[in-house]
Amino acid sequence: MNTKLADKKCIEKATRLGAAQIQRLKKRLSRKWKLAKGKQLERQFEFPDFKKALAFTNRVGRIAEEQGHHPDIFLGYGEVRIQLSTHSAKGLTENDFIVAAKVDRLG
Amino acid sequence: MNTKLADKKCIEKATRLGAAQIQRLKKRLSRKWKLAKGKQLERQFEFPDFKKALAFTNRVGRIAEEQGHHPDIFLGYGEVRIQLSTHSAKGLTENDFIVAAKVDRLG
Repeated sequence: MNTKLADKKCIEKATRLGAAQIQRLKKRLSRKWKLAKGKQLERQFEFPDFKKALAFTNRVGRIAEEQGHHPDIFLGYGEVRIQLSTHSAKGLTENDFIVAAKVDRLG
Repeated sequence: MNTKLADKKCIEKATRLGAAQIQRLKKRLSRKWKLAKGKQLERQFEFPDFKKALAFTNRVGRIAEEQGHHPDIFLGYGEVRIQLSTHSAKGLTENDFIVAAKVDRLG
């Protein structure tokens, strides 16, 4: 269902999205993404062990490097939390939703 | 200077350390480790980019897997924060200091 968003590429100088745009794009992601303080996307993934959580972290890292857009990643035993926001825009941009959609494809 | 601690191996059922033992072992680690709430060791590492931070995360992950003792790892752009504690002991055990000393060898 996220085909189009997940196929997009992050751009430089993406502009901050308004609340309506955020709500519209959020519907194109997995429902497991939470909106934090209106300016950050967060999703938690669970795994049976550390090794699988680390492997997933590396797959997310590959997306981040390809897109030049990097989430914060919390890696615990059997758990990975992804946080996306665009620091330069002080909020959410389409880039965050593009990376989130690509991460959804992994999950 | 941390040769002995870094050469040790984590054991199962390590027991919680008292404040004096914690202070004694902490002196054998890099000064960059902070003691949080008396029951967690934290150290931050900085890197020029995400790729190097992710590579370091994998090196820490290898130690964790070898020792069967896993820190929480926060991976951001150019930044890795390591948090060590022993959940089963509800505090710090020698295992945390052993992993910390092995991480110091990487840094």
